Order: sequence, then structure tokens, then C-alpha cells
Amino acid sequence: MRLGILGSGQGSNMVAIAEQCASGALPAVVSVVISDVENAGILSRARGMALPAVYIAPGPYRTKLDESAEQEYVRVLKEANVEWIVLAGFMRIIKSEFLEQFWGKVVNIHPSLLPSFPGLEAWRQALDYGVKFTGCTVHIVDHGIDTGPILGQEIVPVLDSDTPKTLHSRIQEAERRLYPAVLRELAMDQIGIQGRRSHRK
Amino acid sequence: MRLGILGSGQGSNMVAIAEQCASGALPAVVSVVISDVENAGILSRARGMALPAVYIAPGPYRTKLDESAEQEYVRVLKEANVEWIVLAGFMRIIKSEFLEQFWGKVVNIHPSLLPSFPGLEAWRQALDYGVKFTGCTVHIVDHGIDTGPILGQEIVPVLDSDTPKTLHSRIQEAERRLYPAVLRELAMDQIGIQGRRSHRK
Repeated sequence: MRLGILGSGQGSNMVAIAEQCASGALPAVVSVVISDVENAGILSRARGMALPAVYIAPGPYRTKLDESAEQEYVRVLKEANVEWIVLAGFMRIIKSEFLEQFWGKVVNIHPSLLPSFPGLEAWRQALDYGVKFTGCTVHIVDHGIDTGPILGQEIVPVLDSDTPKTLHSRIQEAERRLYPAVLRELAMDQIGIQGRRSHRK
Repeated sequence: MRLGILGSGQGSNMVAIAEQCASGALPAVVSVVISDVENAGILSRARGMALPAVYIAPGPYRTKLDESAEQEYVRVLKEANVEWIVLAGFMRIIKSEFLEQFWGKVVNIHPSLLPSFPGLEAWRQALDYGVKFTGCTVHIVDHGIDTGPILGQEIVPVLDSDTPKTLHSRIQEAERRLYPAVLRELAMDQIGIQGRRSHRK
């Protein structure tokens, strides 16, 4: 299974995935890592692991890619022959034209138990709301914000002593377990999807 | 701690709570059980446990109490000297006038991990959405629908084989554990609330 990973930040999920590819625990290969941030940690860490790492300028908008940038992302991903696109802290919305090129094959991880707390800083939303459990969710990307079919979730208890920082940190630990685990199930063709519901084959 | 329990159905949560009161595990007493449904199981089961059980006709509306009915509920609860009002499958909305008589002292249990899936048939909403975990939530009742500060939650995994019926049944088992446990913490004055967040003192 050939993966294209997109990220804007430190790339800790990318590293967790790439390490499991390297060890053989995840029967997949990271074909290309792309970032919209030229000096993002994800690019330097990818290069440090000898993975193809590409910066593609996003264009003038803050929350999306402009049209020519989007076309360039699609071109690089197709050239790398990726079968699945893995969003790992990619901070821009993926628009319909992009999605339709890879429909049903773009996955994202979100730092909450969706459908609770979609959008930004989900750990802070959870803490402010006062839930006793939050977590992370791997889902297929569709046209909505954090709305696509769920492939896997992991629970993270909220502690009375939690701050946004401590809670976020424990959710990130869970993400580094969950994301490779779900990708492994995809690679082994163990996940079926009917409507919104996914199940183990 | 004197409890007034309101329910419209079989009263399985009422029984779980009353049993723990009787055994001493929950240092509280069920002072009165009230239903808006004359032949509801909750009333016959309360009478079977020698608890005061009262039917109060709700009036003509389907989803709320009419004004005189509401006044009668408040009168009976005050006469019974209840400190906390426990909603246990009570199928009518509690309006502001009622709530303000017992502000911050009305609790409810909801069959999901709020804020996911407020409203009716939360187990079916969870199944249709495709989440991997749901559960139940005990919360203070405020002016919204299932929006008040959370006192406790319990997780229930969703199984690939679940139907609405099997999932609902496992959530109900969790409710019968969680509700008495949270009431025990309230009775022992172990829960503090700041804003929306509750914590163990």
C-alpha cells in the first residue's frame, strides 16, 4: 500500500507511521511526504528517514490551497502512485476537486471523539465543555469538516488536573497508536464500509 | 440526601438507585417517585419497594407539562423535602419555571457521550453515525436539551454486530452502574463544579 502523507507541523504522526512501515508492522510504504509549510518539521524528519519530501507552496489563502497549488499536489501524489492519502496535521481544507481525484481514499485523524468537537483545538473544546472522556478519530475525508465515515477511535480520559497542554499531549500519544493501527487494517483489507458504518471484515 | 425520582417508563434506573439506597451503598433516600404515565412500570416497581409513588397527570401537551401540572410536580417534590431531583427516563422537557425552583439540583442521564447525540434515541443516532464508542452521561439539567454540566460518563464500545436494541441494552447496563455512582459522589459532597467543568474534591 503506497501512502502519500500531507502535514503542516512537526510530523509526529508521520514518523509513527513511517517507523511502522520500516519495521514491517505496517505493510505499506511512504511514497511521498508533502507540506504546505516550507520549514515544517515533517519535511526535515521525512528527509531524515530518507523519504521523498516535497514542499508545495499553498498560494495566497490561509485555510485552503489555491487552484494551481491544488493541481500541483494532485500531480505529485499521482506521480508517486499513492493509493491512500494520509492527512497528518495538514492545516488546510481539502476541496472537492482534490477529493474527487482520490475519493474515499483520503484519511484524516482528528483529536476528539467525533462527532463531538469538530474543528480547531478539539482538546480545548473538550476541556471547556467538561467531558470526562475524549480521544481521537481516524475517518475518511468527505466534503464536510470532520464529518466522514469513522474507521477507528481511541478513548483518552480527561483528568481533573488536565490543562489544554497535558490533554493534547495524551491525545497525541493515542494518535500515534491509532493512526498506524487503522492504516494497517486498511493495508490488510480488513475494513469494510457500508454507508457511514465501518466494520472489520 | 433526599431524592425525588421522575420517570415515564420501566424505571430500571430508579430500581438501581433505590436498591443502592436500601443496601447503604448510596447514602440517600428515595423520598418520592413521580410519573406522568399512570400505568408506568416505574410506579408499580416503586410501590413494590415500598417507596412513595405518585402519578401526576401531565396535561394536554405531548412533550412538556402544562402549567398546573408543573405546579403540582413542584408542590409534591417540595412537600417530600427532596434535595436532588433525579430524571430517570422522564420523557418530558422540564421548563424554566420548574428548573428555577430547584436550580442546579436536577440531574439527568442521557444514553450517549454528550455532546454527541443529544435528543431522542441516542443509541440509534450513534449506530447510524458509525462511532466506535458511545456511552452514557449524567449531567445537571439546564435550559438546553442535554446541554448542562457533566458530572460523570461511562464508555460503551459499539460492536460491528450491534443493532439498536443490543447497543441500547448495553448502554442501559452502564446507566445502572453510572447513575448510582454519581449520586453517591453527590451525596458524599465529592463533586465540585466550576463553570461547565466538574471535578472530584
